[in-house]
Amino acid sequence: MHALLTVAYVGTRYAGWQRQTNALAVQEVLEKALSRLAAGAVTTIGAGRTDAGVHAEGQAVSIALPRELPASALVLGANAELPADVRVLAAREVPAGFDARREAAAKLYRYRLSRAAPIAPAARPFVVPAPRELDPAALGAAALALVGHHDFAAFALAGGAAATTARRVFAAAWEERGEELVFRIAGEGFLRGMVRSLVGTLLEVGSGRRSVDGFAALLAAGSARGEAGPTAPAEGLCLERVDFPPGSSTAR
Amino acid sequence: MHALLTVAYVGTRYAGWQRQTNALAVQEVLEKALSRLAAGAVTTIGAGRTDAGVHAEGQAVSIALPRELPASALVLGANAELPADVRVLAAREVPAGFDARREAAAKLYRYRLSRAAPIAPAARPFVVPAPRELDPAALGAAALALVGHHDFAAFALAGGAAATTARRVFAAAWEERGEELVFRIAGEGFLRGMVRSLVGTLLEVGSGRRSVDGFAALLAAGSARGEAGPTAPAEGLCLERVDFPPGSSTAR
Repeated sequence: MHALLTVAYVGTRYAGWQRQTNALAVQEVLEKALSRLAAGAVTTIGAGRTDAGVHAEGQAVSIALPRELPASALVLGANAELPADVRVLAAREVPAGFDARREAAAKLYRYRLSRAAPIAPAARPFVVPAPRELDPAALGAAALALVGHHDFAAFALAGGAAATTARRVFAAAWEERGEELVFRIAGEGFLRGMVRSLVGTLLEVGSGRRSVDGFAALLAAGSARGEAGPTAPAEGLCLERVDFPPGSSTAR
Repeated sequence: MHALLTVAYVGTRYAGWQRQTNALAVQEVLEKALSRLAAGAVTTIGAGRTDAGVHAEGQAVSIALPRELPASALVLGANAELPADVRVLAAREVPAGFDARREAAAKLYRYRLSRAAPIAPAARPFVVPAPRELDPAALGAAALALVGHHDFAAFALAGGAAATTARRVFAAAWEERGEELVFRIAGEGFLRGMVRSLVGTLLEVGSGRRSVDGFAALLAAGSARGEAGPTAPAEGLCLERVDFPPGSSTAR
């Protein structure tokens, strides 16, 4: 049986989505739970390779199970086997060979900064303190410059497996939510560390340490990594949603 | 120096507010942090003795420090020494002898139930799954029956140090918040385990396993513990706020 799962996790204690040899990853925890449920080996493919400490509200995971299960039994059964910081939110059957990573049309990431001082302990695993003085106009203009097809080489961490560093960004914007300042970006795909590197660089623009034009030039030139700003901490980042083209995952 | 702190904590990994000999309590963590900050022994009194696993957004803690510190330095300094799941949100100077427990005029507790299935992992440390079929009218009527001065003997866990089991409840009500069902109760004080025992019993009323009249009779009769419902789990409970009478903590 082949299925597409929507998976949420608190990334705090995980070495990211991708299975690791010497650290606990969400993929390993999910595969173990599904293997116990299905009494056999299960393979999984996540649409987004979230880094260590990054959260997900809507990771998409395609799975191949050695037996048939109704979608509702798959959700309940997986959650009975999973630790409380990983949940399967939904499941639907897909055709054999469906690959969540290849089929994903868009991913939406969110980065949360907080101006609260101190940050409430319940929020702390999910937000990062905001720099003091940020210019909303500069932040907004730089976010707008992201939209379109650009070479994001300057914003990729080493170790990514991507063949090219060009990606299309569909939308990017900052929003105020109470004491929080939230950056949301939707695109066809993201390089390793790209969203956090973008956030770190955007915060330099917002703080006046880098101009909007200078930021746009980084995108236009396909500049090297050294020219971007620092990588923002993992805990502020969450994979909010993965979208698929209509009809791509038609149930059998 | 004497001060009144507003303290928030995620209670998950703590054995409650009160210092214990063989388990880690929030009081011990706070006293250690304040002692390091003030370079000397610090005593603390919490207004609410939250149980193991119970959270706080607004615990009130009176402290005696061996040295003078501006309130802002006290907040920043304490937070620099505290783990991320305990934060001092505010501090103000109070007269010597101010006792947060004795002076508190009202405490407000909140209990969160969720109808989401599954519950999002980020919410899981703070909510408890709601029973399936709950009658809002019965829940509301039973909550209303709580308001006033009653003998809550039926709702007290063993081990409390209270001299009497009569307490005044100022307000009690259920609210819908999205997929959550939230019970909030304000009173002059609460017996050990009382809010969780009330929630467990109210849920029996909401599920039709106990009548509103039967619930009211428990309060009127000062019945024994065995007659109340089960104690609801700790993770749903949060000490939201502690109020003091106007002028009770006038700064020197």
